[in-house]
Amino acid sequence: MRRYKAAILGGTGIVGQRFVEILTSHPWFEVSTITGYRSVGKNYGNAVNWLLESDLPQETREIEIIPTNPMNSDVDIVFSALPSDSARDLEPKLAEAGLPVVSNASAFRMERDVPLIIPEVNPDHVALIDVQRRERGWDGFIATDPNCATVNLALALKPLYDAYPINKVIMTSMQSISGAGYPGLPSLNIFDNVIPYIKGEEEKVQTETLKILGRMEEGSVQRADINVTASCNRVPTTDGHIISVYVEADEELSVEDVKETFSNFRARPQEMNLPTAPEHPIILRDEVDRPQTRLDRMAGSISGMSVTVGRVRHGVDDKSLWFTLLGHNTIRGAAGSAVLLAELLAVDGYM
Amino acid sequence: MRRYKAAILGGTGIVGQRFVEILTSHPWFEVSTITGYRSVGKNYGNAVNWLLESDLPQETREIEIIPTNPMNSDVDIVFSALPSDSARDLEPKLAEAGLPVVSNASAFRMERDVPLIIPEVNPDHVALIDVQRRERGWDGFIATDPNCATVNLALALKPLYDAYPINKVIMTSMQSISGAGYPGLPSLNIFDNVIPYIKGEEEKVQTETLKILGRMEEGSVQRADINVTASCNRVPTTDGHIISVYVEADEELSVEDVKETFSNFRARPQEMNLPTAPEHPIILRDEVDRPQTRLDRMAGSISGMSVTVGRVRHGVDDKSLWFTLLGHNTIRGAAGSAVLLAELLAVDGYM
Amino acid sequence: MRRYKAAILGGTGIVGQRFVEILTSHPWFEVSTITGYRSVGKNYGNAVNWLLESDLPQETREIEIIPTNPMNSDVDIVFSALPSDSARDLEPKLAEAGLPVVSNASAFRMERDVPLIIPEVNPDHVALIDVQRRERGWDGFIATDPNCATVNLALALKPLYDAYPINKVIMTSMQSISGAGYPGLPSLNIFDNVIPYIKGEEEKVQTETLKILGRMEEGSVQRADINVTASCNRVPTTDGHIISVYVEADEELSVEDVKETFSNFRARPQEMNLPTAPEHPIILRDEVDRPQTRLDRMAGSISGMSVTVGRVRHGVDDKSLWFTLLGHNTIRGAAGSAVLLAELLAVDGYM
Amino acid sequence: MRRYKAAILGGTGIVGQRFVEILTSHPWFEVSTITGYRSVGKNYGNAVNWLLESDLPQETREIEIIPTNPMNSDVDIVFSALPSDSARDLEPKLAEAGLPVVSNASAFRMERDVPLIIPEVNPDHVALIDVQRRERGWDGFIATDPNCATVNLALALKPLYDAYPINKVIMTSMQSISGAGYPGLPSLNIFDNVIPYIKGEEEKVQTETLKILGRMEEGSVQRADINVTASCNRVPTTDGHIISVYVEADEELSVEDVKETFSNFRARPQEMNLPTAPEHPIILRDEVDRPQTRLDRMAGSISGMSVTVGRVRHGVDDKSLWFTLLGHNTIRGAAGSAVLLAELLAVDGYM
Repeated sequence: MRRYKAAILGGTGIVGQRFVEILTSHPWFEVSTITGYRSVGKNYGNAVNWLLESDLPQETREIEIIPTNPMNSDVDIVFSALPSDSARDLEPKLAEAGLPVVSNASAFRMERDVPLIIPEVNPDHVALIDVQRRERGWDGFIATDPNCATVNLALALKPLYDAYPINKVIMTSMQSISGAGYPGLPSLNIFDNVIPYIKGEEEKVQTETLKILGRMEEGSVQRADINVTASCNRVPTTDGHIISVYVEADEELSVEDVKETFSNFRARPQEMNLPTAPEHPIILRDEVDRPQTRLDRMAGSISGMSVTVGRVRHGVDDKSLWFTLLGHNTIRGAAGSAVLLAELLAVDGYM
Repeated sequence: MRRYKAAILGGTGIVGQRFVEILTSHPWFEVSTITGYRSVGKNYGNAVNWLLESDLPQETREIEIIPTNPMNSDVDIVFSALPSDSARDLEPKLAEAGLPVVSNASAFRMERDVPLIIPEVNPDHVALIDVQRRERGWDGFIATDPNCATVNLALALKPLYDAYPINKVIMTSMQSISGAGYPGLPSLNIFDNVIPYIKGEEEKVQTETLKILGRMEEGSVQRADINVTASCNRVPTTDGHIISVYVEADEELSVEDVKETFSNFRARPQEMNLPTAPEHPIILRDEVDRPQTRLDRMAGSISGMSVTVGRVRHGVDDKSLWFTLLGHNTIRGAAGSAVLLAELLAVDGYM
Repeated sequence: MRRYKAAILGGTGIVGQRFVEILTSHPWFEVSTITGYRSVGKNYGNAVNWLLESDLPQETREIEIIPTNPMNSDVDIVFSALPSDSARDLEPKLAEAGLPVVSNASAFRMERDVPLIIPEVNPDHVALIDVQRRERGWDGFIATDPNCATVNLALALKPLYDAYPINKVIMTSMQSISGAGYPGLPSLNIFDNVIPYIKGEEEKVQTETLKILGRMEEGSVQRADINVTASCNRVPTTDGHIISVYVEADEELSVEDVKETFSNFRARPQEMNLPTAPEHPIILRDEVDRPQTRLDRMAGSISGMSVTVGRVRHGVDDKSLWFTLLGHNTIRGAAGSAVLLAELLAVDGYM
Repeated sequence: MRRYKAAILGGTGIVGQRFVEILTSHPWFEVSTITGYRSVGKNYGNAVNWLLESDLPQETREIEIIPTNPMNSDVDIVFSALPSDSARDLEPKLAEAGLPVVSNASAFRMERDVPLIIPEVNPDHVALIDVQRRERGWDGFIATDPNCATVNLALALKPLYDAYPINKVIMTSMQSISGAGYPGLPSLNIFDNVIPYIKGEEEKVQTETLKILGRMEEGSVQRADINVTASCNRVPTTDGHIISVYVEADEELSVEDVKETFSNFRARPQEMNLPTAPEHPIILRDEVDRPQTRLDRMAGSISGMSVTVGRVRHGVDDKSLWFTLLGHNTIRGAAGSAVLLAELLAVDGYM
């Protein structure tokens, strides 16, 4: 596999930092360009307020931050950690200029001809790229990965949705502060507190999940026929979104069967041995008190890329089910999933 | 109203401390006796590891802690903050000896002839005391208040349940560490963490709620005909349980109507102007991001006795509803509700 | 005592909110004006992101926020919670216009003719107001209260400094997040973290303390002859600055004597029974593990106005001493001390 | 280098877990035995409440926990994470039975013939082992590593003490909750709080530091001639002790010289390339706000084995100095240092 030169758009933010961390040790990609806004002209090492526990990678310190537009450097792929507004403006220009854009921004996720992909869930949706290029006349393209809570939810729902006639999903999330970006939440707002609201989050979970679980049919996605409703809460933890999920099905569900369904789940990224694909996309825990945010957010063979599921049990009756789900919001929920998507695009010939 | 001498059983624990705090400034009661186990013989001021932000009340410092059994002092009412095991053993002896026991322990809550009461919800259940006395041949009695999550949930459900044909309640709680008592949760377990399990809590919420919302019929309680299922989580906050509640009804629900139903709720304790009854048992907030644990746990005219409801909105359809609920777990959820119950018992002639 | 109309400059910030909280229940003052910057034209109730656990006082909700300059309303006294830059610009204009300005801003604290006062420590420094008026030709004046860490430190040092030949003070503070204002510290910076630096704080502690402990001589302040050096740290607590203080003296110090000196400390505000003066400015705790931030920050007869001292013990020898000191940073360390200063100014005829 | 079979005494505690984590990936040692008390007979995987973010090492899951005494298994070295009381009783028995005991317990640290070693500071103190064996008639021996705050302090002091005539050290620590072990601190005690006291800690820092910095002379340690006084505080962080250090010397100190002295520090473990020796025992940071607990506790080429020093500046005069110091309390401060000590003992022929 050749080495691809990667640009990171918005590289000083909290998701941008995760992109830097993941890509600098990646076998296929190397960070050649980092863009910013207020920090243009500075070296990355001086511009970034590095917040990860790993050290700032030495090889990125001297990279000079350039404006996001125009992309005047020679890159093979663009990873976007832009705010939604900037993404809406800038990503199309890059795609039009021939660049593959893998975006973590919400701007285009729900557009009809833009794929919204979790590589383990709907890798076949990459075919939307052909539609997109044809319709928009672009040489490049935009492919997106979902909202951080949605990735984790949809990844866990996938094997259930395939195996059982699920019709309703009621979820309550307890999301970490890093999900709000940086500077994000003022500490005075969240110390010793739970905030029962995250702007736009519930709508994203409710709509994105249906697109991701949907079927490709004649060049477009038929949304999944399932009701998803969400209550999204901010809790005082640093990383990791934990979600209490309640599902209802048209028939009785066996707790043991469901556990096995979670445990056995593998998908194309695992079959293809993609570098960022964890051996088990879903880790099932049998202890009564797992998953826990601090203990399980880094779970899996690729740190932070597996979601952990536990407390599988019946709800009000045998047709309903509770389970608790945990995923790392800036790795599996953002930068890690985007990199895995780029790997999929590479092997599928889109780069 | 005369002044009643009160004993607090298990007065050094975290609920015991709330009893001490509330009762020492109470117009009807005075703390005359405090019992303990390991601390017997010490003065309360030396025995207690006082964890509340208010000062330890001066008048209780010199009270000598006696064993819970026998109750050799002269008291009019007993407030029990005992662990369940001790409660099962000791509370019947006190009731048999003629004492009114208002218990926060779970030991007897679900017994057929023991009232489980939230004064605003089911004050008429006090009639079970007559049954209990007759059947057990006791001069005294045991009356109980519910689990801390249940109090808050059932109080908020009451006006809905009365006004609409609710058939299903799916709730996910985010509960504070003080709910685990003292020493309770080791800090290493809960820092930067969410624990998706609280032993016995979900069963308590699911069964107690049905008894509280049930109807007195011929000397016994007919449980409410409604499905309640719970996911109980521990989050890193000090006080206040916040609950994401999803309800389904047999007919369409108007969000505006429901809000008015919450706002207008008053009950017997308010009508009777009981000293610990808050003016509004339920406070409705219209801001999109309220209630919040730290900001609203002390809400209300009697600090910590009101629950706060917000984010009322539809769920998957017009027959379903989300709302977020917050209540103080050791005040409304424990000691405060027990004191309010004692006030009700006093005016109803049970003391 | 007549009722004074008070303006709060910068009323939506975290210190501004404390001013609102304290003044709305004050016997002498009433809040008639609140100024702001971005929120001009809004009602206070809509403009403020109220972060205190008490409810937003009803009577301030409808006050319309006006620009800080010009002060077009009719007020008797101005409390300033402005940022330093704005204070430097605006406070002189108000003083020139005849208004008494009691400022919590750092802008003028160290100016030769501006009093920097803790009412229990150097009430006689109010005489600088006369110098200030004469030299600047103002009808009004500016009087300041110290930095939040300094107030607590200097208040505790005062009785020691008077009684013993202290020559060196080495202090390490552990300061709460509310000291950084709002929005202040991003949560991602301070969760599970200690930050060993607070911009400008150490210099303030080192210089302000010497002015406060200084002597009035012929119309100016002779700084105290003592070395003070500080290490200021931010720790993840909401309110309350705790300080580890090490002092050295020219002679042997008796731990018991020093404890008594702390306990017995009273000053003019106590003698004059000022409304915001706590009965004991310094509360001495004998327990080995007090003061503690959460348990003692609200200590005293006027909540949050007393500092708590504990762990008094010798250092490397009998001439040196450790003690631990806690004070509430936005009450005693800011708004509360400013209100107490205003009370002093009122009885001393400066209003 | 051959592979040594290692026993971990008290393997389920928080330091025991770090031993397991470090030793299972160690090139020289393998965990063959784990001892416990209440968990005897269980497999380690079932007995331990694993609290580290890394996964519980697979190869230790099935190890059956045996009682600490008698050591009936075949091991080459013993790592002790016992509580002090048990250590006092059991460690001598193991040493007498011929085993090398590297102990993290405080029981024997200050005994005249027991070495208390930080491999970078006083590796020559291993010679005390010969004295110990001769005097006690043991085939094995006890070697100890210091208290968690002391390791970090003494490691940073070493190059200063060698280079400058330091005479006084005044330190205030802000220590993490993991330093209290497990279950350790109840969460209700430390949330939103600072506790200004840790039992026995200040004495340990004050005495152990002098022994570690002392000189071997005719078979015993001459304590360093320096005054050390400590104020030890518990703050709400999970891992990492941060210390504000103030030193005084007999002559002027140049801040730039001191920084270089810190940066250039290397010692025997580095020269010998011991597996757990970090490339830089002391990492100097120049940013004004570093070290920070969460960002720097894992610093260094061997995670958690370097201490980070920053904020080097003058104190009250040119002969005094402030700096801030951070070290990981259960790695460099306990298990990591003990393993490094065992490596030193191995190459020095003591095993």
